[in-house]
Amino acid sequence: MCGTEQALVIKSSKNSSVPQATDNNGSMQNHPSEAIINLDHGDPTMYESYWKKLGQKHNLTIPGFQSLSYFSNIKNLCWFLEPKLEQEIKMLHNIVGNAIIKDHHIIVGTGSSQLIMAALFALSEPLNQPNPINVVSPAPYYSSYPEMTDLLRSGLFKWGGDANTYDHKDEPYIEMVTSPNNPDGVIRKPVVITNGAKGMLVHDLVYYWPQYTAITSPADHDIMLFTVSKCTGHAGSRIGWALVRDENVAKKMVKFIEVNTIGVSKEAQLRAANILETISVSCQKIKSRDLENFFEYSHNLLVERWKKLREAIKKNELFCVAKFPLQYCNFSGDFTESYPAFAWMKCKDGVDCEKLLKEHKILSRSGRRFGSDPEYVRVSMLSRDEEIDVFLKRLPTILDCK
Amino acid sequence: MCGTEQALVIKSSKNSSVPQATDNNGSMQNHPSEAIINLDHGDPTMYESYWKKLGQKHNLTIPGFQSLSYFSNIKNLCWFLEPKLEQEIKMLHNIVGNAIIKDHHIIVGTGSSQLIMAALFALSEPLNQPNPINVVSPAPYYSSYPEMTDLLRSGLFKWGGDANTYDHKDEPYIEMVTSPNNPDGVIRKPVVITNGAKGMLVHDLVYYWPQYTAITSPADHDIMLFTVSKCTGHAGSRIGWALVRDENVAKKMVKFIEVNTIGVSKEAQLRAANILETISVSCQKIKSRDLENFFEYSHNLLVERWKKLREAIKKNELFCVAKFPLQYCNFSGDFTESYPAFAWMKCKDGVDCEKLLKEHKILSRSGRRFGSDPEYVRVSMLSRDEEIDVFLKRLPTILDCK
Repeated sequence: MCGTEQALVIKSSKNSSVPQATDNNGSMQNHPSEAIINLDHGDPTMYESYWKKLGQKHNLTIPGFQSLSYFSNIKNLCWFLEPKLEQEIKMLHNIVGNAIIKDHHIIVGTGSSQLIMAALFALSEPLNQPNPINVVSPAPYYSSYPEMTDLLRSGLFKWGGDANTYDHKDEPYIEMVTSPNNPDGVIRKPVVITNGAKGMLVHDLVYYWPQYTAITSPADHDIMLFTVSKCTGHAGSRIGWALVRDENVAKKMVKFIEVNTIGVSKEAQLRAANILETISVSCQKIKSRDLENFFEYSHNLLVERWKKLREAIKKNELFCVAKFPLQYCNFSGDFTESYPAFAWMKCKDGVDCEKLLKEHKILSRSGRRFGSDPEYVRVSMLSRDEEIDVFLKRLPTILDCK
Repeated sequence: MCGTEQALVIKSSKNSSVPQATDNNGSMQNHPSEAIINLDHGDPTMYESYWKKLGQKHNLTIPGFQSLSYFSNIKNLCWFLEPKLEQEIKMLHNIVGNAIIKDHHIIVGTGSSQLIMAALFALSEPLNQPNPINVVSPAPYYSSYPEMTDLLRSGLFKWGGDANTYDHKDEPYIEMVTSPNNPDGVIRKPVVITNGAKGMLVHDLVYYWPQYTAITSPADHDIMLFTVSKCTGHAGSRIGWALVRDENVAKKMVKFIEVNTIGVSKEAQLRAANILETISVSCQKIKSRDLENFFEYSHNLLVERWKKLREAIKKNELFCVAKFPLQYCNFSGDFTESYPAFAWMKCKDGVDCEKLLKEHKILSRSGRRFGSDPEYVRVSMLSRDEEIDVFLKRLPTILDCK
């Protein structure tokens, strides 16, 4: 798993190359057997069911006179971070145990995408190199890394490709360490072999939450990225955060966000704070009362979906998905496999898997986009129940007609 | 006036070079005579008083299950634009008469800063030039344009300086037309003289609202930028919008925002829609009931502040500010001068005005930052009453001790 969901292939009605079978929000409209199932992007609508059960109890209300100012706390290094969000981020990491907050600055971003750009800027700009430095990640890597890195043809950094085959030649570089990885859910460590201190790391940990994988220890890296999109499902809020050890790097990241968007929406921050607070409360037996543990609920949903996926694939030898090791999760106090937000499916050799699925009205993302082979596709496991159900019913019926 | 408020010079408590006399949100804490008055950035807290008078009546409430998806309307070219915001933007422009909506696409951005970047990307990327194209604006220009243009050392575009002295050499370039201009409030037209079609324009119209200046005709340009920050005072929301004529340019701008932040916060969009709706209603006599016309209210506040500023300056020959012509405003149905969001003050020759004001605990922004001379400063007129009052009381007492 990993990175955030970018490069969403959107078709406007005027330009659509595929028939539209969904309403404006992407929900199915047609009869299920006819519907196009869009599992290309990881839109986390699976989580709606949890929040709907809570009803109106966890509404956020903002009066018209609140939060007019650009500033949240001018005494904070990250002057646009709402104090309440800062507090709830700390609380949640402490409860889940997935990251060390101590000795880290918290920087809020407009989703983790903006924080990735901010981190690349903060690490590369002070080096003042004559040529852009390489940004690498081992294939299969998050499909948006190349695009976001090269978007403005920056003189500071450029996409350097697959970290497995990268030779740093004693030059500075940045490795994106995405763990669990997007698209394949694998737990990762840095791969570039370096003797010096010129390799800089950005840990993209947006899927390091207990619904997806075992929390084996609190992560403690120089730059760690998280987002509510993949933690709570609130992708529409565009709220991410970075935990950054070095003060100068943190300042440069703040500078990037200041110039890029002059801070981050206060409404979105206040809502995210509210949502994170609810989740934290749901994890505490004494406080939670009738609130179901959010991570248990989401974990159970994913366990069920993955079980059905494996059963569906068993009936069709055309496809396979990897197994994940059992690991002890400190949060749940139990052994668990990983149940990633995406299935990284492989077709038998020679089959273009994305094309094959598209013929059966299932939109997925080709392995090519992740620096891998066309036999692979990434399929979102975070859609609504009805879409996942249709996908899982259709999967066993797909034949390779070649 | 113009552009949005960027390059906010923020001092964290650890690194502050000036004593902190404000609380976390920038409000005064110390006795007024001791307080540091920060009028460097255009934080529009002046508008709080209008919204406070409305009390809880115009609250926005968002339940926890709303807006989880990345998508707002997949059938819209701008797939992350909330339909309700689109509707209220159209409504407000129709009521105010400051821009032609017809034949334009609406693109929402995380403040107008992101939209400036998106426009530069959209205009330069398809040209596929070997070298970055120049972005220019006549001095005094918005102080953030150079910084945002050159932030990532893009190979697509670079800051080209003062448009008054720019020779385009028959090469493509982009001129930022900021009207009313930031910092000096002047109504502008493009200045670069070009015979061919290689000059591209971005109209930054974020201050083209009736509280600041006469609405003489609806603007009708290829790319026009607006923001709630300067229209309604909700700078903390980070919501701007672009009206874009060409479909391909609009698509490229959407692409930029997709890669940069995967859309724009839904909470902020819904709140902005609410706020714009309130303003529109306040302008319609039949509907408004006890709601005071927002633009009349804000205009009156600015008229009062400018009157006091001119009186204060009259008592001190050290300073001067320009006069603005009377123009007929189609919105108010009356003649009015301009009452810009910033005062562009000039000290007598040889005086570093920013330095002089700083000695009197007034933070302003030097003319140098706008491509102009150190005799000039930009002073925000949008702060809270108590800060403006202290500033206006202190101004006549300032002497040039050189």
